[in-house]
Amino acid sequence: MKARVFVTLKNGVLDPQGKAIANALHGLGFAGVGDVRQGKVIDIELAERDEARARATLKEMCEKLLANTVIEKYEIELQA
Amino acid sequence: MKARVFVTLKNGVLDPQGKAIANALHGLGFAGVGDVRQGKVIDIELAERDEARARATLKEMCEKLLANTVIEKYEIELQA
Repeated sequence: MKARVFVTLKNGVLDPQGKAIANALHGLGFAGVGDVRQGKVIDIELAERDEARARATLKEMCEKLLANTVIEKYEIELQA
Repeated sequence: MKARVFVTLKNGVLDPQGKAIANALHGLGFAGVGDVRQGKVIDIELAERDEARARATLKEMCEKLLANTVIEKYEIELQA
């Protein structure tokens, strides 16, 4: 089973990397760009075939390693 | 309109960061973890309301700034 995990900064946490991208886009002439936030995407291949168990394992991975839950939030997406 | 852009390494390009994550997960006891790849996710707010035009603009942003198309590929996802 393939999983995709998004780790992004919580709302309200300053995101200088996103700001830098927004500024660069403005500089290139993309005028209609508003807020930009940058995060990480992690694609994981799992041996687990049960969806509920895979989701539980991924949640544990996020809490233990992938996300710093003080400032980051995560989303888990399972692909068939 | 909100858009989410994924920038990930092309298949075949070595991903040391992903490898490091896989090793760390194994070390934590997550045995069923196979290949891991890490990429970037960029959330962009756009003033544009037309879906086709937004997609074209985002494609241009990716080609010009967000992705290094020699080694990276990108996916664009539009949210209502």
